Amino acid sequence: MSVSYTLDINCDLGESYGFYQTMMNSDEAMMPLITSANIACGFHAGDPSVMRLTVERAIVHQVAIGAHPGLPDLQGFGRRNMEITPREAYDMVVYQIGALDAFVRASGGRLHHVKPHGALYNMAATNSKLAEAIAEAVYRVQPELYLYGLAGSELIRAAQRIGVRGVNEVFADRTYTSDGRLTPRSHEGALIERSEEALAQVIRMVKDGVVVSTDGTLVPITADTVCIHGDGTHALTFAQEIRRMLEAEGVALTAYEAR
Amino acid sequence: MSVSYTLDINCDLGESYGFYQTMMNSDEAMMPLITSANIACGFHAGDPSVMRLTVERAIVHQVAIGAHPGLPDLQGFGRRNMEITPREAYDMVVYQIGALDAFVRASGGRLHHVKPHGALYNMAATNSKLAEAIAEAVYRVQPELYLYGLAGSELIRAAQRIGVRGVNEVFADRTYTSDGRLTPRSHEGALIERSEEALAQVIRMVKDGVVVSTDGTLVPITADTVCIHGDGTHALTFAQEIRRMLEAEGVALTAYEAR
Amino acid sequence: MSVSYTLDINCDLGESYGFYQTMMNSDEAMMPLITSANIACGFHAGDPSVMRLTVERAIVHQVAIGAHPGLPDLQGFGRRNMEITPREAYDMVVYQIGALDAFVRASGGRLHHVKPHGALYNMAATNSKLAEAIAEAVYRVQPELYLYGLAGSELIRAAQRIGVRGVNEVFADRTYTSDGRLTPRSHEGALIERSEEALAQVIRMVKDGVVVSTDGTLVPITADTVCIHGDGTHALTFAQEIRRMLEAEGVALTAYEAR
Amino acid sequence: MSVSYTLDINCDLGESYGFYQTMMNSDEAMMPLITSANIACGFHAGDPSVMRLTVERAIVHQVAIGAHPGLPDLQGFGRRNMEITPREAYDMVVYQIGALDAFVRASGGRLHHVKPHGALYNMAATNSKLAEAIAEAVYRVQPELYLYGLAGSELIRAAQRIGVRGVNEVFADRTYTSDGRLTPRSHEGALIERSEEALAQVIRMVKDGVVVSTDGTLVPITADTVCIHGDGTHALTFAQEIRRMLEAEGVALTAYEAR
Repeated sequence: MSVSYTLDINCDLGESYGFYQTMMNSDEAMMPLITSANIACGFHAGDPSVMRLTVERAIVHQVAIGAHPGLPDLQGFGRRNMEITPREAYDMVVYQIGALDAFVRASGGRLHHVKPHGALYNMAATNSKLAEAIAEAVYRVQPELYLYGLAGSELIRAAQRIGVRGVNEVFADRTYTSDGRLTPRSHEGALIERSEEALAQVIRMVKDGVVVSTDGTLVPITADTVCIHGDGTHALTFAQEIRRMLEAEGVALTAYEAR
Repeated sequence: MSVSYTLDINCDLGESYGFYQTMMNSDEAMMPLITSANIACGFHAGDPSVMRLTVERAIVHQVAIGAHPGLPDLQGFGRRNMEITPREAYDMVVYQIGALDAFVRASGGRLHHVKPHGALYNMAATNSKLAEAIAEAVYRVQPELYLYGLAGSELIRAAQRIGVRGVNEVFADRTYTSDGRLTPRSHEGALIERSEEALAQVIRMVKDGVVVSTDGTLVPITADTVCIHGDGTHALTFAQEIRRMLEAEGVALTAYEAR
Repeated sequence: MSVSYTLDINCDLGESYGFYQTMMNSDEAMMPLITSANIACGFHAGDPSVMRLTVERAIVHQVAIGAHPGLPDLQGFGRRNMEITPREAYDMVVYQIGALDAFVRASGGRLHHVKPHGALYNMAATNSKLAEAIAEAVYRVQPELYLYGLAGSELIRAAQRIGVRGVNEVFADRTYTSDGRLTPRSHEGALIERSEEALAQVIRMVKDGVVVSTDGTLVPITADTVCIHGDGTHALTFAQEIRRMLEAEGVALTAYEAR
Repeated sequence: MSVSYTLDINCDLGESYGFYQTMMNSDEAMMPLITSANIACGFHAGDPSVMRLTVERAIVHQVAIGAHPGLPDLQGFGRRNMEITPREAYDMVVYQIGALDAFVRASGGRLHHVKPHGALYNMAATNSKLAEAIAEAVYRVQPELYLYGLAGSELIRAAQRIGVRGVNEVFADRTYTSDGRLTPRSHEGALIERSEEALAQVIRMVKDGVVVSTDGTLVPITADTVCIHGDGTHALTFAQEIRRMLEAEGVALTAYEAR
């Protein structure tokens, strides 16, 4: 008897804007290493031309395409919390899914998922009203789309209530608290610096369904997809390492599909 | 033997933004009087919340819904020409169609047409490269959408070349030059002030397929749809008059459909 | 022996944007009724052309001119809290003061004060770090400018620490809690609907230095300037009433000047 | 008897935005090599935080500071022509000068000049109405500011008419037509690729007051300041070369001052 494991590797891409390139601009090099791409939709990053180009690249590389809607805050890169109503969240997510989907359709592809960005992602992880508004946006635009959210968060719960398929996202290089949340970036020990540790954490989450929290307890976690970074000096190297390691462990790498 | 005439009455709506209301804000009152609505998509006017609300209103009133993409110039209301490339035009039109279409799908409706706004509309009327880029955007997102453009303009010709169904738009309150173009607003006599004259011009265009140009010649013109304004003191009154008059003349009022 | 009272009446103006007019657009009519104007600076409302026009009007009417900086959120009219750092607050306030001041200088006027807008005003009332950043921005651009803030708030205290002259602002149509804060708009009884009550509250604040809180206690308050609204159906009427009443009570109406 | 030559070396800096860095981000390295900096003001590039940082750097390096106003087109980096009225040009230039000047004042510096950016610069070089509007904006905000414009262009002529001191800008790596204009970038031979040629052209312009046009004629030209690029692979190397060469030729390098 053998158990088979599968994992989706997702990455945020298409985050340039106009004249501006993201620092490493490794989008093109990252494509062959991932199984799904979250593409910025013009609110926190991205513009129509960058969106088209990134969609075309993803299709060439047979990478599953996700809309990556964010807050309307280009200067803050969508990372600053804003007090928005659930209605406003619903509206801005519908808008951005539609904008990206048009490029996907125009290029002959098919939209696969939606993953909120930055502050919108974080707020949706703990605020059930915002989470429901986002899940409802996905449901009403295209109910078969997957909704990526922090593993075990309010967004995953809201997806289930609304009738959208939530996909549990885990992080390789972030530590977790004993209640299964990410350690806030402002706290010490929030980031896992050594890549061997990050890789070991991912293997543990995929194979054993647990993560060791910062206080040493074992926390159950579902790992449907792992997020890796598209920029930074070590992004490409880390992406290559995580692929090699997961394949060596017998984990099949493929865009998330419900079984 | 009897000849039957049909005409579509279209109006630009959903042009509020955030806190701001357009001057007359007669959107709600205008809905029962028109057969198709061109809804701003967030670049020159409109925001996600206004778009949703306007789409919902149009569905209630069974008004055909069109995307109304514009230049990225909120301050200038999309009325200032910008030197954009055909590629940029393609990208911004794909984006805006998609954004509006998502609201239409989320509300259970069906997108009917696309009509470029303001400076984008005017540039597409004479610049064949921009016109083709816009027609291609429509074609690749959803080839069955109608593309509204100035009657007889480059945009209508481009639609035909690309394989999209162009819809000839005429204006009730604008005069025409002998080569079938609109008299520029900066010229004297560009506007028809008296509503009886405007109504007579529309009847002539629909029934005889001609318009009397500013130098008195008869110019052939195809009138598939007539544009009426949604704001201004007399907008509602004029809309009521034109409906009454057209119905009295036996013209069937209905959203444009290819026969 | 007689005591003399003075009061400044301020109003937020210049809040149109591009094509958009604020609902009542009563800016012109309001000018003769107020003693100082807070002019939007292009982030939450206003654009360069509206700013120039509003500055010119204020100079004609000899109304003291204030910069009215807000959060970079045009769609939300600067009313949605955003998690910004004190450094970002400093930078956006410096920028907006400068932009408005250029129009004032270009028109031969002199900038008189700065009053943060909306969510920035509210956050600065309770967050001492943001308050200090704003006060420092004023101090470093032009230390003699007055800084208008909620009476008795953190912003007033920060002004004192930094060395800027804080001006205590009170509201005619808002109720106060027993700790001297405004009752949040979301609570019942936050607004004073009857204008006689609003007028009585202002008189009490000016003459007796107290306000009756929602639980009936007398709360000491300093009233250097009272804010009245520039839009809404009753704005002009209320402005006329408050002027007449204050003059009848022997209160001198004049832009705030330190004595 | 000896003739002395002086030249100002200017460079566009502070063109990052939010999360985005310009490609080479060599602003810091460029500062010691130039005598004046044109700092973006938030419309085509730059944001309040980038502006503050760049101003502070310029003051440390004793580089003369100029405002670098552009069109409101962040996505197009201010390089797309827009049909704006002279009034709109005046308003957007006043606004942007003021915003930058506030950071200069807050840091204890003094604003030295204004240089329009990109499409605004190009339009002002040939459109006398726009040129006058820009010169008037400078004159009314601070008449002692220098106005940098294309050598011999309409902007220089407008400055003279309005009473502002125009500063003739030349380019090292661009060729000129026989009527003294820059060869459009779209034409072949618009750029001078070899740096020796570029250096030789600058020397000729400074010492002899002429440039050899693309058809071989000698065209008189005034070289008050030379523009060098802040980004691109060779920017730093070229800046070092041009300094060394000019100093070897006995040209004094200093921010422009009227004599």
